[in-house]
Amino acid sequence: MRDIPAFLQSADDIVAFANHLADLAGEAIRPYFRQPLDVESKADASPVTVADRAAEAVMRKAIEAEFPDHGIFGEEYGHARPDAPWQWILDPIDGTKSFVTGLPIFGTLVALTYEFHPVLGIIDQPVTRDRWIGAEGRPTQHNGRPARTSAVTDLAGAAVMTTYVDAFTDSEQAAFTRLRKSCRINRMSGDCIAYAMVASGFAEIALDGRMQPYDYAALVPVVSGAGGIISDWEGRPLDTSGRARVVAAANPALHRAAIEILAGA
Amino acid sequence: MRDIPAFLQSADDIVAFANHLADLAGEAIRPYFRQPLDVESKADASPVTVADRAAEAVMRKAIEAEFPDHGIFGEEYGHARPDAPWQWILDPIDGTKSFVTGLPIFGTLVALTYEFHPVLGIIDQPVTRDRWIGAEGRPTQHNGRPARTSAVTDLAGAAVMTTYVDAFTDSEQAAFTRLRKSCRINRMSGDCIAYAMVASGFAEIALDGRMQPYDYAALVPVVSGAGGIISDWEGRPLDTSGRARVVAAANPALHRAAIEILAGA
Repeated sequence: MRDIPAFLQSADDIVAFANHLADLAGEAIRPYFRQPLDVESKADASPVTVADRAAEAVMRKAIEAEFPDHGIFGEEYGHARPDAPWQWILDPIDGTKSFVTGLPIFGTLVALTYEFHPVLGIIDQPVTRDRWIGAEGRPTQHNGRPARTSAVTDLAGAAVMTTYVDAFTDSEQAAFTRLRKSCRINRMSGDCIAYAMVASGFAEIALDGRMQPYDYAALVPVVSGAGGIISDWEGRPLDTSGRARVVAAANPALHRAAIEILAGA
Repeated sequence: MRDIPAFLQSADDIVAFANHLADLAGEAIRPYFRQPLDVESKADASPVTVADRAAEAVMRKAIEAEFPDHGIFGEEYGHARPDAPWQWILDPIDGTKSFVTGLPIFGTLVALTYEFHPVLGIIDQPVTRDRWIGAEGRPTQHNGRPARTSAVTDLAGAAVMTTYVDAFTDSEQAAFTRLRKSCRINRMSGDCIAYAMVASGFAEIALDGRMQPYDYAALVPVVSGAGGIISDWEGRPLDTSGRARVVAAANPALHRAAIEILAGA
């Protein structure tokens, strides 16, 4: 990871550019929120809208102009230059089910990875205008102020969030049931906002079954830079080379407790 | 219901007063959103915060001053004048679990009932500043514009929302599973916002297990005035004399389809 020092020297520029991408996506998405929409279903039955496509297209165009040698991997338009060491990983609307049903708990995800290692991530909620940004070696910010994870260390005091229980296998469902019954509060349909709430200290644990790199790459710097731990369900660090089951926790104690409950699922 | 014509003659005043109550509640709640909070648990394990109490107290005070002969039934402070024909039914924060975990999908519920019949209802989301208001004989409004339910009439095209699967009995859980597997999209943790989305046409069905009158009274005029159908799970109209299992649908066809799936649960 020789180039990471160079990244860090220019990080203000990179962070500003990533913010610009999220701005562009938000401008593309807001006009479509709570408006009648044509909704298609993709092969995996997740809905996709003109807003997803418009937001990804405008971000890709900006990346092509500014960093023509960087790769891009987006949910809607796939890969460009997949062998480049630097990759922008984009999910224009994470939580399209919430977007199409009018719930402001979806988000635009922008990540920059170096050799599959996420060095920068943005979670942007364009309707409530909430933005979380994490970058290697910097504290995570929520709307310009530092975000810190919760100090709660016992499951009985924790709030746990997930997205879509129907995406779990039977054994994952059973593990999630054990976990949520050990916690104080559970909330579902959270998508990326669940991980933002872990970063900001309003939830203690977020988890999902198999996610694509564009679903989780941005979450890694946001959660880590706020003091949290994010890994796969076996406790291994996430790289962005493939799909992964993701769990984020406010601190090492809760992370260990969650991993223990999820073991074997 | 002899006094309802009188209510309707003065309805502009009553609607303005109900809006004022929701304004007061929003002012009380917003400072506490995404702030560190002491959270207590009530007997039914639902969390309650200083924001719930402050918002209900300020609404009760305004009602006592303006309508001293009306009754009040609030989630936090219980009954006043329970035998009065006119009752204000208040839930200062419906969706406290979302409120305490930082998700802007809770709401303040204000209802006015006459002999257990809801004649006016407000669903107010104080963070996103979304307000739905329904009143007997008037079209439901969302932020001052008419709200209309969806024209989708088949379950396969419908989005279904609920709040808290752990509150269902086993047979209710099984019925909900059948229903959501018949629908295109499901979202959970919706609380009152699920019913607002039915009123505004972004979801087609919302349902919950046993709810208190303060959880559902306000939903009735909002959903009905937008063209939807709201009833208990047996299809009977809701009055506010006791707890009920509630289902709302965009139109009679979807309501019948939902009731059929829920039958026997």
